[in-house]
Amino acid sequence: MPHRPTSETGRPAWRASVLTLFPEMFPGPLGLSLAGQALAAGIWSLDLHQIRDFGIGRHRAVDDTPAGGGAGMVMRADVLAAAIDHARASAPEQPLVYMSPRGEPLTQATARALAAGPGVMILAGRFEGVDQRVIEARQMREISIGDYVMSGGELPAMVLLDACVRLLPGVVGAAESLVHESFETGMLEHPLYTRPREWEGRAIPEVLLSGDHKKIAEWRAEEQRRATAARRPDLLKRTAS
Amino acid sequence: MPHRPTSETGRPAWRASVLTLFPEMFPGPLGLSLAGQALAAGIWSLDLHQIRDFGIGRHRAVDDTPAGGGAGMVMRADVLAAAIDHARASAPEQPLVYMSPRGEPLTQATARALAAGPGVMILAGRFEGVDQRVIEARQMREISIGDYVMSGGELPAMVLLDACVRLLPGVVGAAESLVHESFETGMLEHPLYTRPREWEGRAIPEVLLSGDHKKIAEWRAEEQRRATAARRPDLLKRTAS
Repeated sequence: MPHRPTSETGRPAWRASVLTLFPEMFPGPLGLSLAGQALAAGIWSLDLHQIRDFGIGRHRAVDDTPAGGGAGMVMRADVLAAAIDHARASAPEQPLVYMSPRGEPLTQATARALAAGPGVMILAGRFEGVDQRVIEARQMREISIGDYVMSGGELPAMVLLDACVRLLPGVVGAAESLVHESFETGMLEHPLYTRPREWEGRAIPEVLLSGDHKKIAEWRAEEQRRATAARRPDLLKRTAS
Repeated sequence: MPHRPTSETGRPAWRASVLTLFPEMFPGPLGLSLAGQALAAGIWSLDLHQIRDFGIGRHRAVDDTPAGGGAGMVMRADVLAAAIDHARASAPEQPLVYMSPRGEPLTQATARALAAGPGVMILAGRFEGVDQRVIEARQMREISIGDYVMSGGELPAMVLLDACVRLLPGVVGAAESLVHESFETGMLEHPLYTRPREWEGRAIPEVLLSGDHKKIAEWRAEEQRRATAARRPDLLKRTAS
């Protein structure tokens, strides 16, 4: 029977499993601050699986040269399938995600959908990548954190987990602070200011000190539109279509 | 005089400085594998600055409520400027980057340009964000790792550093393996295969076993076009314009 850890709230924990050659990287940054407190409180749990344990032969090989030639090494389908099938035994419900620059771009909507589910199982690859056949045979969802290349899938896995974990109930104190932030509205956030009122000759915009909540809301909405149009017109197009 | 660490190769180290409330998160995942070996070899260096050391009063406050109201806290301009100006004294040449969802999207071209320079100084924020005035006054370049929200700027800083560090000379063994990967060509990578030749009834595509290098190159180029058109038509538009 699958082990289902339970949080202090009585809710079953949101369950993360990571398959990696570097389990010692985890929880790493996710062991501190918001995500770390939530981990300690049992709001989420983290299972690590060392891919090398499923490697082949005396040297526990996990990779081989690419068919057709070329630089670098490719992770073997048989080794990865064995690791995945083993991890599946104790986490049968979690969607399987492979962090890959070929994947769909990670969005806040994806993080929200994954956070609403039972958890996630993540394959963090290394080397040139992974044999295409295991991606297809185990029906992996390929997700990319952005259009740049990482030295491995571990940091991308942490990024995905952090994006999800902070959306779990009880992790961020004021629920309101999740609502007005970037991408939840499809637009960039407005600029922020705090004390002191003047600093290095720069003043906080008058309207923010007016106490007029309607005007402040209008100013912020306009600043969101302005920043998005100037910096990320692609987001406006996406909203419009 | 600024301290300029030198690597085993005699080249001055590519220098990263990070300003954060969680210096204990670093080097974290960057202390292992490719980036960790390069750090140990002196190919890059990492200076950490605790923002709280520049906080105000007995409690070393670094944040305050947002002007105009709203949830969450905003990091103070005066505190951040003091931390930055202190860090600048020993790293005067590094471009200053603020990891922000309002920033320009990180691309492989940006990573390559930063890797070619003297290093980078990164502000990793927390809470709702940072007072806009210090972003302007210290001329920060705002960079976003993607359209999703993180609990802080530390993981994004690690992503940026990893993307840069693996491009430094001597970090990735075969220079060739940097050339053919995703985004270097403006297109997604082709699928990869390795031994065994057949697995779970799935065969490696015949052409890859043919030994015909011209046909293999054509097949890979076609697979790149096909994957990019199917998964990321936005990249093709970008290349065309």
